[in-house]
Amino acid sequence: MTATIPTTTTEAATTAATVEIDDTRTYAAARERSSVLDALIDEHAAEDPARFRMLTGDRPTGPLHIGHYLASLRNRVRLQDKGVETFVVIADYQVITDRDSVGEMGANVQGLVLDYLAAGLDPARTTIFTHSAVPALNQLMLPFLSLVTDAELRRNPTVKDELALSAGRPLSGLLPTYPVHQAADILFCHSRIVPVGRDQLPHLEQTRAIARRFNSRYAAGHSVFPEPEALLSDVPLLLGTDGTKMSKSKGNVVNLGDTADETAARIRAARTDSERRITYDPGARPAVANLLTIAGLFLDESCESVAERVGDGGARALKDVVTEAVNESLAGHRGRRADLARDPAYLTSVLHEGNARANEVAERTLATVRAVMGMSY
Amino acid sequence: MTATIPTTTTEAATTAATVEIDDTRTYAAARERSSVLDALIDEHAAEDPARFRMLTGDRPTGPLHIGHYLASLRNRVRLQDKGVETFVVIADYQVITDRDSVGEMGANVQGLVLDYLAAGLDPARTTIFTHSAVPALNQLMLPFLSLVTDAELRRNPTVKDELALSAGRPLSGLLPTYPVHQAADILFCHSRIVPVGRDQLPHLEQTRAIARRFNSRYAAGHSVFPEPEALLSDVPLLLGTDGTKMSKSKGNVVNLGDTADETAARIRAARTDSERRITYDPGARPAVANLLTIAGLFLDESCESVAERVGDGGARALKDVVTEAVNESLAGHRGRRADLARDPAYLTSVLHEGNARANEVAERTLATVRAVMGMSY
Repeated sequence: MTATIPTTTTEAATTAATVEIDDTRTYAAARERSSVLDALIDEHAAEDPARFRMLTGDRPTGPLHIGHYLASLRNRVRLQDKGVETFVVIADYQVITDRDSVGEMGANVQGLVLDYLAAGLDPARTTIFTHSAVPALNQLMLPFLSLVTDAELRRNPTVKDELALSAGRPLSGLLPTYPVHQAADILFCHSRIVPVGRDQLPHLEQTRAIARRFNSRYAAGHSVFPEPEALLSDVPLLLGTDGTKMSKSKGNVVNLGDTADETAARIRAARTDSERRITYDPGARPAVANLLTIAGLFLDESCESVAERVGDGGARALKDVVTEAVNESLAGHRGRRADLARDPAYLTSVLHEGNARANEVAERTLATVRAVMGMSY
Repeated sequence: MTATIPTTTTEAATTAATVEIDDTRTYAAARERSSVLDALIDEHAAEDPARFRMLTGDRPTGPLHIGHYLASLRNRVRLQDKGVETFVVIADYQVITDRDSVGEMGANVQGLVLDYLAAGLDPARTTIFTHSAVPALNQLMLPFLSLVTDAELRRNPTVKDELALSAGRPLSGLLPTYPVHQAADILFCHSRIVPVGRDQLPHLEQTRAIARRFNSRYAAGHSVFPEPEALLSDVPLLLGTDGTKMSKSKGNVVNLGDTADETAARIRAARTDSERRITYDPGARPAVANLLTIAGLFLDESCESVAERVGDGGARALKDVVTEAVNESLAGHRGRRADLARDPAYLTSVLHEGNARANEVAERTLATVRAVMGMSY
């Protein structure tokens, strides 16, 4: 039984529509599914971890900051501790999709491992690995590329954004294939859950399409690859200390590895406004609301309640509250991080074991893929 | 040291010009270089085989026919016997670049191995392997894709032809990356020589560009990948028995595995013309010239001399000469092929050993690639 790739007028067009026209409705549906999934995890993950296998990860382009911690790292640890089988990919090949140099790759990878372990990811239960260390995973890109249309790849929002931003700089051949690497990362270990932000939903849809088409075209309808589900983050978008998107290159972030003093200095320099009384009003006072949100997330307290506590203390008092919240919440993390940093051999062994485990899983998956495709000779 | 990918106005544009405008001059230069290379092989291959390592191969889409035999298979054996280290890739993933189904993959792969061995490729000296069995080779596609521009891939003649032929059928995401798989096939084993036809010269240029750019961008100018050279075939373009391009699907070919009777029947049905006297005149009498060429190549005799021998015997006598030439020349091949076909376990072992050797080479290359890219953790 074979199926043809949907033409531009059907499924692929729906993906574009998801982003451009129908985002709100689709997003609401995705949120609904994500809530149900969260409840299922609570109920069943401990007894059936493989059913909730999760793939998540980071590009090793620099240190993780508090935005990563609040929006994803903390959540990974929470899910792991509920029993979810967790795979964390350090997506090193994604670094060269849109830049010419790999940068300080070794140091960046080590920094990620430090933060993963310090945050509580347990290498005995969670597989931490680098994309480039798992050839069988990378090989999946070839059959998977045959399951997407060239037009779909070019319609992907990330690729379109890069095209718009490129301003004449030639686009690398690796960039348009990026949603397919991501599909390989997600599918090689048969993940059922992928924690994503709203902007990544179209990528996950591409992965789901690849899983469906593989099963239909190459596996006679057998479910070689289950379709993964999005687990949407509850954390609102956090801004940097200058009120723009958090970004290492802008110097507007507090890194997990920063000292308490560096943290205090960075928050002291944060943009606020001139009103003395602190209130939570994201529309009218975005910079103040952002600081309140950060404090609230670290303290597990509502933004309004933090604002009330600061009251007429003004920006200075607000910043003191935020600084204290960040530094006290991260004190344990930072202590463990510093201890771990003194044992690079241990970090290497964690990565080696994770890579070995990922290779084992990937080789098994690739053997199945080759077998169903009639390529086991 | 890093280098940027050339923009559309420089190197990539030259590639397009190579094909569209300047093909004749470039081709003459390529022929000249190829002749020099051939002489160097004669002189030095026996004493320094690695210097002339060669990569060649086939897509397993069906049985090999006499066109493959005369234009490439015979030549591979000749080069192997001169001492050239030979790698033969069975490019199974290339089958799904432009079709939805893998077809009779297992049988096609086995057929190729049969013909390779029957023709005289010696598995002790020559590495015969399948693309899908070498994950480390496939992984090279990711760093290599970062070294080409999206525009270059879309300007590739094969991709352009497919785009023109697709007539609305969606183009798979695998097709535009095809020149990059090919580069991975060629470069993973550090080939110095690639036998190609004129139409494939632009592909080899893309591979040479990838080698250069890798060395410059990721290896600080060290020659991790030597630039391979084209070895152009001396054999003129052969046509099928209906006067059009040889193609399995048109039923206009004599397969190496056909019997003597099947061969006779196929050649008896070949198009000729109504002139009784047989002469070699490719311009005015292409079908007759094509048969004379086939006979001449098998008999190692000039087309004119074959024509003279047939003389006034007409098409019937010409066809008898061709049939006899094919059947006698291939008798040994066909006998060995039939013997080998009775031992499928041996064929499997040849492929397993070839795959193991290719994996060893590919893993070494990938380790170097990861090391110079700062991805050995």
